[in-house]
Amino acid sequence: MRGAVIHAPGDVRFETLADPKISRPTDAVIRTVATCVCGSDLWPYRGAEPVDEPHPMGHEYVGIVEEVGSEVTDVKPGQFVVGSFATSDNTCANCLNGWQSSCLHREFMSTCQADYIRIPNAHGTLVATDEHPSGDLVPSLLAVSDVMGTGWYAALAAEVRPGSTAVVVGDGAVGLCGVIAAKELGADRIIAMSRHASRQKLALEFGATDIIGERGDEGIARVKDLTGGIGADSVLECVGTPESMRQALHSARPGGNVGFVGVPHEVSVEGQELFFSQVGLRGGPAPVRRYLPDLIDRVLSGRINPGRVFDLTLPLDQVAEGYRAMDERRAVKALLKP
Amino acid sequence: MRGAVIHAPGDVRFETLADPKISRPTDAVIRTVATCVCGSDLWPYRGAEPVDEPHPMGHEYVGIVEEVGSEVTDVKPGQFVVGSFATSDNTCANCLNGWQSSCLHREFMSTCQADYIRIPNAHGTLVATDEHPSGDLVPSLLAVSDVMGTGWYAALAAEVRPGSTAVVVGDGAVGLCGVIAAKELGADRIIAMSRHASRQKLALEFGATDIIGERGDEGIARVKDLTGGIGADSVLECVGTPESMRQALHSARPGGNVGFVGVPHEVSVEGQELFFSQVGLRGGPAPVRRYLPDLIDRVLSGRINPGRVFDLTLPLDQVAEGYRAMDERRAVKALLKP
Repeated sequence: MRGAVIHAPGDVRFETLADPKISRPTDAVIRTVATCVCGSDLWPYRGAEPVDEPHPMGHEYVGIVEEVGSEVTDVKPGQFVVGSFATSDNTCANCLNGWQSSCLHREFMSTCQADYIRIPNAHGTLVATDEHPSGDLVPSLLAVSDVMGTGWYAALAAEVRPGSTAVVVGDGAVGLCGVIAAKELGADRIIAMSRHASRQKLALEFGATDIIGERGDEGIARVKDLTGGIGADSVLECVGTPESMRQALHSARPGGNVGFVGVPHEVSVEGQELFFSQVGLRGGPAPVRRYLPDLIDRVLSGRINPGRVFDLTLPLDQVAEGYRAMDERRAVKALLKP
Repeated sequence: MRGAVIHAPGDVRFETLADPKISRPTDAVIRTVATCVCGSDLWPYRGAEPVDEPHPMGHEYVGIVEEVGSEVTDVKPGQFVVGSFATSDNTCANCLNGWQSSCLHREFMSTCQADYIRIPNAHGTLVATDEHPSGDLVPSLLAVSDVMGTGWYAALAAEVRPGSTAVVVGDGAVGLCGVIAAKELGADRIIAMSRHASRQKLALEFGATDIIGERGDEGIARVKDLTGGIGADSVLECVGTPESMRQALHSARPGGNVGFVGVPHEVSVEGQELFFSQVGLRGGPAPVRRYLPDLIDRVLSGRINPGRVFDLTLPLDQVAEGYRAMDERRAVKALLKP
């Protein structure tokens, strides 16, 4: 089979790789129906994370089950499945608490920009749809495997509740999905921070009620203006830089909550500042597995359409162009089809 | 009147001071019935915070109302009152959200180790009891004004729930009150981290089910041993040092919560570590005013007895000895009576 391999920052190649095989009884192998490039894939692509040796890329996927190990009984060959970027056995203490992304047997997916994918912990990771979905639903089901699940987690971690005010920091695919999540969870007012016209437009279509283009202290002041001077109930931090975290923490009111889902890079939070803010803070890799059944239902029923974050679709063998387009901000998110 | 003044680290004096007066229509002046020395008073006493010029000390108090300003209608002269160390108007947006310790008109109390005290924002800060309490209840009512309210907040910020497991980091007065709070809020298992026999004993009497004497990695390993390998649902951080914060964050399970109420000194939290822990974190000065009616009821009904944290009672004019005894760890907490 063939798949994407990163050799160095800026250098992603589509290469012949060994076909994946069942190596443990809890494995499955799926044939990729769609995969994509994640904002977090850009960290190594941009040299912000080291690339010590060439390695495959990709952690988002939907596909058709090809083969399962002997202990995989919930899904079977031929089924269309959605999984999480973090695999989980769904039976350990952390899974039972609903924190499957901290499964004691977790393995992060990292080989999904390929024709076929081995899924570890397949028994606790994959969720099959009743029937094969129509092609127009595939992008949204793919989004559920990471960005929509992550936006959902951001909104839950930020404790978005009916009638509350939410701020979304970051207008990438996760931030835009965070707008969907805040809307679904009942926020009355959703303030999206974005400076890009096309993303502002999509945020508004997803349910944002206000757009703030300013950043830093000006952005914080604008949020305060819109929230009675005290800040928002909930803030979704969907970037992962020191600037975005500062923006988020200062946009929340005392007693409010920040859910942070952008993998933090060189971020640290000063204890006394967090203390006097009285803001609650929770982040992490989203426990997407917990949300999969619900989010798949919302997609299949047409209630949400997070697949709209894909504004570029390419054949899988043009994966390198997908990275380039996202790096150059010509695309929010690139979907890849084998 | 007379009151405590700190002149330099280690130098607290009991001096003649100007009598407090009503300076705003929302003020009250109370005659002190009891006050005390707080763990946080030891920061400047030990030189960990600067003492730029001599200033009065003390922020915990119960007393009898002497005089009220024209806008103070809820309490009247002659009543016994309990208040918070953070004053609040109880009408601003933050107060209405239940975060009175971030009141837009907040003033922190700082002159309470004295015969008489001016209370700013008295209308939204003081809660009167129906009648004058008997003397044996005074220490517990005094505790409610700060350490019991703060332990309560730590337990709520750590989301202690019926049946949960809670760890309390810190065996000072706040930590011990945190044990009471965890018990009242229904925790099944309460693990107190303490190396002092007398404090261990009091923690057990307050409801702790386990004591851990180890600290650092050993202490964390012991918590994991007692919590199925994953950590506790809730951790109350009641110290405020880098070591105690690390202890707390590593003692919580993925998806668990840390409530931190020790004012952080040189503490910073690394973003990626917090991210992958998936631990929720909330701290701050406790919104004691929100809890006052409930906690006063629990004291008056005999349900809780946080006044037991006072293991030294002195005449107010011996306030310097109170500081010394706490600094030398001869006392957990010193109560002072004019």
